[in-house]
This record gives sequence, structure tokens and C-alpha cells, in this order.
Amino acid sequence: MNSFTFYSPTKVIFGKDAEMHAAREIKAFGGTRVMVVYGGGSVVKSGLLQKITKQLEDNQIPYTTLGGVKPNPLLSLAREGIRQALEFEVDFILAVGGGSVIDTAKAIAHGVANPDIDIWKFWSREAVVEKSLPVGVVLTLSAAGSETSDSAVITNDEIRSKRGLSTEFNRPRFALMNPELTYTLPRYQIMCGIVDIMMHTMERYFSPELGNDLTDEIAESLLRVMIKNGPIALENPTDYHAMSEIMWCGSLSHNGLTGLGGKGDFATHQLGHELSAMFDVAHGASLSAVWDSWARYCFNVNPERFAQFGRKVWGISEGSAEAIGKAAIERTEAFFASVGAPTCFSELGIGVQPDEVVRELADRCVYFGQRTIGSFRVLGRDDVYQIYAMANR
Amino acid sequence: MNSFTFYSPTKVIFGKDAEMHAAREIKAFGGTRVMVVYGGGSVVKSGLLQKITKQLEDNQIPYTTLGGVKPNPLLSLAREGIRQALEFEVDFILAVGGGSVIDTAKAIAHGVANPDIDIWKFWSREAVVEKSLPVGVVLTLSAAGSETSDSAVITNDEIRSKRGLSTEFNRPRFALMNPELTYTLPRYQIMCGIVDIMMHTMERYFSPELGNDLTDEIAESLLRVMIKNGPIALENPTDYHAMSEIMWCGSLSHNGLTGLGGKGDFATHQLGHELSAMFDVAHGASLSAVWDSWARYCFNVNPERFAQFGRKVWGISEGSAEAIGKAAIERTEAFFASVGAPTCFSELGIGVQPDEVVRELADRCVYFGQRTIGSFRVLGRDDVYQIYAMANR
Repeated sequence: MNSFTFYSPTKVIFGKDAEMHAAREIKAFGGTRVMVVYGGGSVVKSGLLQKITKQLEDNQIPYTTLGGVKPNPLLSLAREGIRQALEFEVDFILAVGGGSVIDTAKAIAHGVANPDIDIWKFWSREAVVEKSLPVGVVLTLSAAGSETSDSAVITNDEIRSKRGLSTEFNRPRFALMNPELTYTLPRYQIMCGIVDIMMHTMERYFSPELGNDLTDEIAESLLRVMIKNGPIALENPTDYHAMSEIMWCGSLSHNGLTGLGGKGDFATHQLGHELSAMFDVAHGASLSAVWDSWARYCFNVNPERFAQFGRKVWGISEGSAEAIGKAAIERTEAFFASVGAPTCFSELGIGVQPDEVVRELADRCVYFGQRTIGSFRVLGRDDVYQIYAMANR
Repeated sequence: MNSFTFYSPTKVIFGKDAEMHAAREIKAFGGTRVMVVYGGGSVVKSGLLQKITKQLEDNQIPYTTLGGVKPNPLLSLAREGIRQALEFEVDFILAVGGGSVIDTAKAIAHGVANPDIDIWKFWSREAVVEKSLPVGVVLTLSAAGSETSDSAVITNDEIRSKRGLSTEFNRPRFALMNPELTYTLPRYQIMCGIVDIMMHTMERYFSPELGNDLTDEIAESLLRVMIKNGPIALENPTDYHAMSEIMWCGSLSHNGLTGLGGKGDFATHQLGHELSAMFDVAHGASLSAVWDSWARYCFNVNPERFAQFGRKVWGISEGSAEAIGKAAIERTEAFFASVGAPTCFSELGIGVQPDEVVRELADRCVYFGQRTIGSFRVLGRDDVYQIYAMANR
């Protein structure tokens, strides 16, 4: 087992009616004036928002609200939230939603605690987060893992750039997780969540630093649980068991546990972010659209790793390491297809792109040559171009 | 997945030289005057204690020390620690050792924060912990999991009673875990640690509340990793890989993760505690000495659960559920024997006991009829007597 630091201090309250603990937990974590951040109308229509604000009213906790967060959340809305939050003098941000809402809440928390710094600087690496406000979460979507993770992704709508930020200040204080709140999601969103959750684990699993028995076993466990329960959930989104397993997988998939001792690759996330930034496609769909191309391009770095993935996750026992590894990629691709996840550009709904667009995607993904992506195989501009070109079918 | 609350906020720094972060982490968690708690001479002889106190001196952190903690740690020493800590006005307790040292540190932390309450009242359930001092850990023994757990066990030497206490205030702020610090342990202690770690997971696994896919998979994973690495570690205690896997298993085994959604049984721990209290035997050894007797006595409650344990942990695939379940008990017993862990009273070194002693053990274990133990099968005085009698060979 290689060296690591693991610090996942989010308090998780999981199960039916978990959302009813919001006021109690806000008070326990020191919140006295709250901004409630949410997305579209579903949180309003379902009555969830009202359930939360009523708790705040009953507990004499003043609050303001910020709605309208969209998938691939925008910097401009976060800035607007910061302005309102400063005006209302909030000391706690409550996210009611999925990853986009939570990431917006994190961005607002950083901005309110640092009113003299333009928050994009945290994402562009021109400034470092050294303080923030506490954030709590009522989760309505199993996908991003942002409810326990140290990361937040924001899209700068002025320059069409989508960037992630990892900092311990991104860890929410608490996450209230009621699987029933995910029953009414569109199937496409459930599918995207399944892909995202699996990918958070797979992008840690394909690491250049191996030899972590317990980490590997936990990662393989989580993937098996997703492969079992994902199709059940899509078949019947009110299956409490399946939806609850997926929800808990989502949190453990991205709190760090599944990659301890390794070095995350996350190339697929970077490849996907660029597709989302250019075409505004759903995050999960952008990942499955490139993964098998990434896997085939990187296979030769460590065929045995793909073979272990095949044996332990997919139960493939016959054949050479190379054959098992390649079969594992095919099985993963077929699984994605079976749950309706795209595995190439045309299935992603953006059509086959002209070569200059593929080149522009690659240029943007490596910041015009200023960075590489990935660690399992370090990828430069030409590698990224090749992978996009493989997926461009 | 059933409902649960999971809150494991301990910051883990894992790997070579982890102990060198003690002063930095104490300061980060607000410590300014420290009591360093440790056990016997090995921490002094190895130079570890001096490494720690030098860091405190270099960082101008005043400290006092309390040595002499023994296995099955005593209330009387904790009380002495509280007296000294109050006199020195400490605001942080640093444990340098294994479970007994950490549990003593936790007891001292509760006592210093509550100087008007006799701390035994927390363990006897006459008072509830509502505040405590922060505790940090430099771990030297993989076993109790106390470095991340919410529990602490203390033996009241006046009335020869060993009791556990679970409270969120028992969670250490940080744990510094360098597997190399466990290289010099006697093999008997390494073996006891292996048993204790496995038992923390097995006692959560055999729960009356089932249907938690991810929890089960993680528990089974951890047990497989222990079964693989335990014998390697005993063969060669300087095998970094094996010792590091065992160390991380120890922490995850008892931080709650392996039992989420279930209801811990912990009957084996209660049975073992009574043996330790009466005969001062090592904790881990006391558990393996009774486990197979417990398992055979409780088998009929849910043979399928034992069968899952057999299939997933031991890889037994042939036979009926009942046959696989029974074979799994035999395999576990044989594994304990293979690592030198006792599986009955005589192997525990206390000899076959007269019936009146067995009856007294049972009486004490159920607090003379005032409580039952276990949840997989709820055990009263006669059940406990039967299990002790089965192990009394």
C-alpha cells in the first residue's frame, strides 16, 4: 500500500426522510443565516424546496434562495450568488440538488469567504483557497459525488472553459441522502449518473501506481455493485434498493477511498469536459463517449491491469492477460450501450465532427499545449487528438 | 441499503515517516499544550517517543507525558492521567501506541473536559459525554482500529469490569500511520491484531439487518485482504506491503464503513471482554477462542448468511448453502489455528475451567441478567453459558 492522505469529514445521513435533518445539521455546524441553492423547477414542484425552507422557518433561521443552476454550472450564476449572499450576510450555504448545484454552492462559499478575490482565479490556479464558508447538501441526484468530494467543476461562460478544482475546502460538512428523492429523475440523467459514478472509480483504478490490495478490492466491489444495480434502477427508478446502492456508490466513488495509494488518471474526465464545454452535452454521456477509445489507446501501457479489471469486475477467467483485458474493454463498452450511454460522438448526439473541430477539442483539452492530461498514460496534444479521432464515429 | 449515519472525520496520513507530521497536525487542530500518552519501553527504546517530543520542542509546544499504559488499559491510570493533564492545563492529547494507549487517551480527554464527572460514569452509562478534548494518534499497532473508531474500552480495576463506550467524541482528529512502526512487534501481538481486525468486520457482517450490497462487498473485500496478507506478515513482519495492508484494514474495519446499513452483533467482543477481565488474556486471542463456538451456536439463525461468507470470503462454491456455511466456519477456525490464534480455552492458555467458572463468566457477561448481548442472535445468560461451555475444551 502506497502512501496517502485521506480526510473525508462529511457527515452522511442516509435513508428515508434524511432531508428532514437539514435545520438540525445546519445549526450543529454553526450556520445562522443560510443561502439555499437549487436548480430547476423539479425541486419546487416536488415540494422538496418548501420542505427545506419550512424547516428553516420553524427553526428561526433566516435564509435567502438562489435557483436556476443548470447542468455544467456557470461561473456567472455563482458570481450572482456571491453578490446576493454577501448582501444577505449568509454564513452557511445549503445545496439542494445534484453535482451542479453542489459545485455552485461550493463556488459561492469560496467567494463569500474571499470577497476580494475573483473566484475564477481559484479555478484558473491564479489563487489558492485558504478559507471558505461551510456547505451542506440535500442530494437529489446520484452522480457527481460532489456531496463528499473535494472537487468542484465550474464553466466560465465568458471564455467557454470548464475547469475542476480540488481543495479540502470543497468538502461539505454534511450530506443528507434520501434515495427516494432520486425516483423522479429522467432516465437519461440516471444513466449519466451511473456512468459518472463508475468513471470516478475507473479513473482511479487505472493508475500508474499500483499494489494497493484493499483499495483495488473496494474499487472492484463498487463497480460490481454498479453493474448489478444500474440496469435495475433504469428498469424501475422507484426500486429503493437499487437506487440506494447507486446513491451510496456515488459518494464512495469520489470521496477518495477507491483510489488511496494510487494516482488518479482522470484523462477521461478532461476529455469529456471539453466536449461538454463545446457542445453542452451531459457530463456522464461525455465520459462514456470517449472511454473505450481512451482504453484502447492506452491498453499497451499495462495490459495486466486491464486483465485484472476483466477478471475481478467482469468475471472473465478464460484466456491470456491480453485477451481478458481486451474483452474487459468490450464488456464495458457493451454495458454502457446496454444502459443507453453513448460510446462515440454520433451516439452523443453531436454527429461525426470535421477534423478541424477534433483538432480544436484536442488543443483546448491540453490548454493549447500548456499541459498534459492523464497519469496511467500521460497524454499530450497528439495523443488527445488520436483519442478524440477514435471516438469521432 | 438500509438507513445509516456515517461520520468518520479522522484525517489519516499513511505511509513512511507519517509520524513526522505530529506537531503540524496538533497545531492544525488547535493544540497548544499537549499530553503524550504511551505504553511500555518499546516506544522509548525505538526512539519514537523522542522523535515526537523533539517535534513538540522544535515547535515550542509545551507537553507532559504519561507512560505505562498496559493492554486491557486500566481506569486507575486514566484517572492519574486526568489529574496530571488538568494540572498541566493540556488542551490536546496525543496517543503514541496501539488501542490501549489510544483508549486511555480518549478517557483522559473526556475526563479533562469534564473535571466534575467521574469518568467511569461514561462507561457505566450513568453519564453521557457531551464534550471532550481533541485526541491525535501515532499508531504503532494494527489491531483495535481505535485510531478511527468511535469506541474506547476501559477496565475498571477496582471491580474487575471491562466495558466499551461508543460516542462521536471518541473519534480522533488525526491518525499518523507508518507501517514500519509495527515491524518490531512480537508475533503474538501481530496475530492478535489480525484476529481483532477480522472480528471487527465479521461482527458487523453477521447482522440481523441485511441487504446492503456495497457494505457486504467492502466487508468481504477487507476479509480477503486480511486472509491474504496476515500469514505473510507473520512470516515476515518487515514485509512493508503486508504490514501496510493490515494497518489500513485495521482502520477501515472499525470506522463503521464495513457495517453501514446493518446492526453490529458484537457478541464475540462481549464474550472476549469477560475472558480478558477475568484472566487478563490478550484481546485478540480472547475473540478467536470463542468465535467458532459462537458461530456454531448461532448458525441456524441464518445459514444462508454463513454460506455467503463461505462463497465470497473463502471461495467455497460446492455444496448446499448449509454445507458451504458450515465449511466456512471450519475454514475460519483453521485459519485462526494456522496463524497461531487460540480457538478454545486451553489454547488460550487458561486451561479447561470448572463449570462454576464458566457460569460466573456467563453471569458477568450478561451483567447478572441485566442485559442480553448480540443482535444476529440475541443471547441471554443461558446462551452465553452454552457458548462458553463449547469453547471450554
